[in-house]
Amino acid sequence: MGVLLTVAYDGTNYAGWQMQKNARAISEALGEALGGIFAPGFSMTGASRTDAGVHALGQRAHVLGSSPVPIDSLARVLNGRLPRDIRIAAACAVPDSFHPIDDAISKTYQYRISCGDFANPLMRNFIWHTFDNLDIDKIKTAAAHIIGEHDFAAFCAAGSSVKTTVRRVNFLEVEQKANEIILTINGNGFLYNMVRIIAGTLVDTGRGKIATADLPAIIASKDRARAGQTAPPQGLTLMEIFYK
Amino acid sequence: MGVLLTVAYDGTNYAGWQMQKNARAISEALGEALGGIFAPGFSMTGASRTDAGVHALGQRAHVLGSSPVPIDSLARVLNGRLPRDIRIAAACAVPDSFHPIDDAISKTYQYRISCGDFANPLMRNFIWHTFDNLDIDKIKTAAAHIIGEHDFAAFCAAGSSVKTTVRRVNFLEVEQKANEIILTINGNGFLYNMVRIIAGTLVDTGRGKIATADLPAIIASKDRARAGQTAPPQGLTLMEIFYK
Repeated sequence: MGVLLTVAYDGTNYAGWQMQKNARAISEALGEALGGIFAPGFSMTGASRTDAGVHALGQRAHVLGSSPVPIDSLARVLNGRLPRDIRIAAACAVPDSFHPIDDAISKTYQYRISCGDFANPLMRNFIWHTFDNLDIDKIKTAAAHIIGEHDFAAFCAAGSSVKTTVRRVNFLEVEQKANEIILTINGNGFLYNMVRIIAGTLVDTGRGKIATADLPAIIASKDRARAGQTAPPQGLTLMEIFYK
Repeated sequence: MGVLLTVAYDGTNYAGWQMQKNARAISEALGEALGGIFAPGFSMTGASRTDAGVHALGQRAHVLGSSPVPIDSLARVLNGRLPRDIRIAAACAVPDSFHPIDDAISKTYQYRISCGDFANPLMRNFIWHTFDNLDIDKIKTAAAHIIGEHDFAAFCAAGSSVKTTVRRVNFLEVEQKANEIILTINGNGFLYNMVRIIAGTLVDTGRGKIATADLPAIIASKDRARAGQTAPPQGLTLMEIFYK
């Protein structure tokens, strides 16, 4: 029996999920906390490699090994050993056949944007602020083109090696609250930087820099240079990973 | 003519508004930014002394001095000189007779509380999390007793010297959003730690540690030991200061 942890973190002070040279990773901090509980030789696999500065409320980590702590107490005991910017939201038992990456059906991310003259300092690590005014209707129109199954090669950062760049975006909601725009996207998988490039492209349409009518041609081009900028990491939060 | 600045800040990394030995204050950072623009000899007075870890969206700072930067550009120019956790939201001219403390009619603060098993790490610097379940109805009943003009000596930290401990609380709203409770309080003035002691007392009623029916007697006692704990600073934000 393995254990599946639901992990939440403020990514501001980390180099991302994955171990890096010369910089502290979230998986490193979590691995140390697990090492204080699990017998030597345990393994931990994260479901998603979030980048430096990206946050999570629903990251998952799969742990194989033996622990004297009962599963019902594991989250509480781990939280006592973790820094305050990383929290275990839940721990549950999963069968031996479980795989945290292969068994994932879909993931939901949220990207938060604010606009206007005032950049709220309380939100600076959790939102992308732009001084430009954004046309929400253009962003909504552009977002509708993203939904569905497409080859998202134009929305993939260079340097990633994947078998296919085809992905299905199940939904992409655009919500406005005061001077904030919240994008909520769910898909069966995301390419490297895909959500941030989608967010950057939508903001570029909201600014009038990219025409909403060009979205189908940008997708069809499979050319990263045709899509918009990569939105900065701090606006992004991994909200949930759904399993079979 | 003086200048009235509306100042927003994330107080997490500061010793509070007021200059301290061995710790960086918000007024110090703002004073340095002003010193790069205003001619030597300018003065700056804050409207409210927020504590270490307390935030502001509507702090005010009154500046007297001469500046070559026109008032319409002052916020933008100052923001270029300030750290990202301090922002000038607005700058306006005020008459010579203006006084930032004496002319204030009322102030609004917000105090945020979350409860339950999961302490959201993204909110850890902006909310008071308690693992106890809180009874929102008890908190609302207790809050109603706070509203009005009272001698708030029981809600004042020791060591403060004021002429009178009588203050008027104009409103105290208790709002629930998912697992969050937001207190919004407006009054004609607040004693040292008064909002945090009110928040701590309301949480103690929500926990069942203080009976809501005891609130009038606690106020009448003028005894700090009868009121609840002082809620921690990070849940508190100075929202707005109203002037004549």
